[in-house]
Amino acid sequence: MSDMNRVALDAMGGDHAPFEMVKGAVDAVNKDKRVKVFLVGKGELIKAELEKHQFDSSQIEIVNATEVIETAEPPVNAIRRKKDSSIVVGMKMVKNKEADAFVSAGSSGAILVGGQTLVGRIKGVERPPLAPLIPTAKGVSLLIDCGANVDARPSHLVQFAKMGSIYMEHVVGIKDPKVAIVNIGAEEEKGNALVKETFPMLKELDDINFVGSIEARNIPYGDADVIVTEAFSGNVILKLYEGLGAVLINKIKEGMMTTTRSKIGAFMVKPALKETLKTFDASEYGGAPLLGLRGLVVKTHGSATAKEVSNSILQCITFKEQKINEKIMECIQTEQ
Amino acid sequence: MSDMNRVALDAMGGDHAPFEMVKGAVDAVNKDKRVKVFLVGKGELIKAELEKHQFDSSQIEIVNATEVIETAEPPVNAIRRKKDSSIVVGMKMVKNKEADAFVSAGSSGAILVGGQTLVGRIKGVERPPLAPLIPTAKGVSLLIDCGANVDARPSHLVQFAKMGSIYMEHVVGIKDPKVAIVNIGAEEEKGNALVKETFPMLKELDDINFVGSIEARNIPYGDADVIVTEAFSGNVILKLYEGLGAVLINKIKEGMMTTTRSKIGAFMVKPALKETLKTFDASEYGGAPLLGLRGLVVKTHGSATAKEVSNSILQCITFKEQKINEKIMECIQTEQ
Repeated sequence: MSDMNRVALDAMGGDHAPFEMVKGAVDAVNKDKRVKVFLVGKGELIKAELEKHQFDSSQIEIVNATEVIETAEPPVNAIRRKKDSSIVVGMKMVKNKEADAFVSAGSSGAILVGGQTLVGRIKGVERPPLAPLIPTAKGVSLLIDCGANVDARPSHLVQFAKMGSIYMEHVVGIKDPKVAIVNIGAEEEKGNALVKETFPMLKELDDINFVGSIEARNIPYGDADVIVTEAFSGNVILKLYEGLGAVLINKIKEGMMTTTRSKIGAFMVKPALKETLKTFDASEYGGAPLLGLRGLVVKTHGSATAKEVSNSILQCITFKEQKINEKIMECIQTEQ
Repeated sequence: MSDMNRVALDAMGGDHAPFEMVKGAVDAVNKDKRVKVFLVGKGELIKAELEKHQFDSSQIEIVNATEVIETAEPPVNAIRRKKDSSIVVGMKMVKNKEADAFVSAGSSGAILVGGQTLVGRIKGVERPPLAPLIPTAKGVSLLIDCGANVDARPSHLVQFAKMGSIYMEHVVGIKDPKVAIVNIGAEEEKGNALVKETFPMLKELDDINFVGSIEARNIPYGDADVIVTEAFSGNVILKLYEGLGAVLINKIKEGMMTTTRSKIGAFMVKPALKETLKTFDASEYGGAPLLGLRGLVVKTHGSATAKEVSNSILQCITFKEQKINEKIMECIQTEQ
């Protein structure tokens, strides 16, 4: 049982719960024998969904939780009051070592608050950052932090750089990942107070491959593997990525439908184009880990479908097998 | 002469100077009788370029300046030392009322520093913001500030909102423009310390149409006309817009070239697609004004071609004719 990867999945979170959550869990266990999924949420609903699927019943278990935290609820209150919600129950499983990881497409705020207060931080970690993978021309980069800690301090950013580097090397498999800090110019003397103070601290670290500043323009080209920034800019980058991608693709579709000639052309380019745009689809890369917790918490998109859910569950296996938390502990404690 | 719009153009700034600068000036005067362009820079070089073109010679005049500020030079020093550079000479023309506006594709840093120290601020304006127009699904939005003032204070953002609103209404022609502040969530209680402090101040203003927070995801959809933010996030938004747009369009081109079928399709969609993507091309909208100065300073892209230069020059006419600076003065002084 200890070799099994135990993932608690919030069956009630996200726009397409429980349907896509249950389907994602089934897909994951059917793909990998090493994972057991606990579906946390309203038992009757989950059971009804599960009956539609075929899977090894030893790999999926329902954990009943009667309440649901809505995305609009103030997170601190919600975590405190809804003790029988899928988020609180799932996170407590991680805290009590009944699960190795918790995956949720529910309220970001509740997941961030719950991660810190219920699961708890690794000793020495000041702030656990949320770190999604974003698609680039070369593959993916890790954006760290993208929403967990506004008004961060330089020491937080230094820890983000270290944790991000470990994640990219051992979960994503990029050897000696290039770490850069988001800045408004490439030169060392540029930046706001936070970046100017953080830059020399990053430069001094021996255990990461710090390559200096990165301008936002170069992020989509994949010039760095780990993109360090405080949560406000990180959130702006992540959300603009999503919004601009969607608007541009719509514009292009519109453009293709303006003349008869272009409509015929569109019909012919469609299959090839679909394949290419897939590489720019964030859901291909699973959810965003909240790093630095005593256990793993993964936030997927609110709009997550079975594919993203399944990818997020499988990502938890690599996280455990690569002993990411042990590596984070080691690297954070060396600095103390 | 006082009805004439006098624009000093930095003939030496940008990647394609003086060729594209001179061509842009010629295009502008050939399009509009109401403008006179002073081409500031190395006289011999400009003269040689001018000889290739036809234009009304009363509309273009060369102003000799022997030095050039390079983009890599530390701006404060450059402005102080290179007294005979095209940027310093052009800005002094605005200061001395020999020109109404100065347009440059040169060093952003030097333009920002020069604008503040040589041209000078309108009384009451705390920080002059740089405010480019960015393309959206609905047209354009004004992004203010996008690089002039890092570590801004709430009172600066309030002035950005007012000046941006005047610019969008009277230069771009959007009646009662919607003003929003960039935030990491739509709710009023979200945000970092700066946004939380600024939000209620914006809410209290009667003279702008404040619509609340905007998440970066919604910027490309055109949900607000004036996007208020401090310079660091603003710069991240602007540069990510450019980078992500370019990378996505490349991906799409690549995708269209993967199979024989898609290649034929690509040939057929190309003309329609080109037309659509034009609306997402920042150079269509001219340069970014540095607002709140005693005179107008416009920064165009370093890569500006004649079209952007010409559009930027013509934009100066509207700015003067609509008495934007008088309107800014009035609105800033009311608040004192």
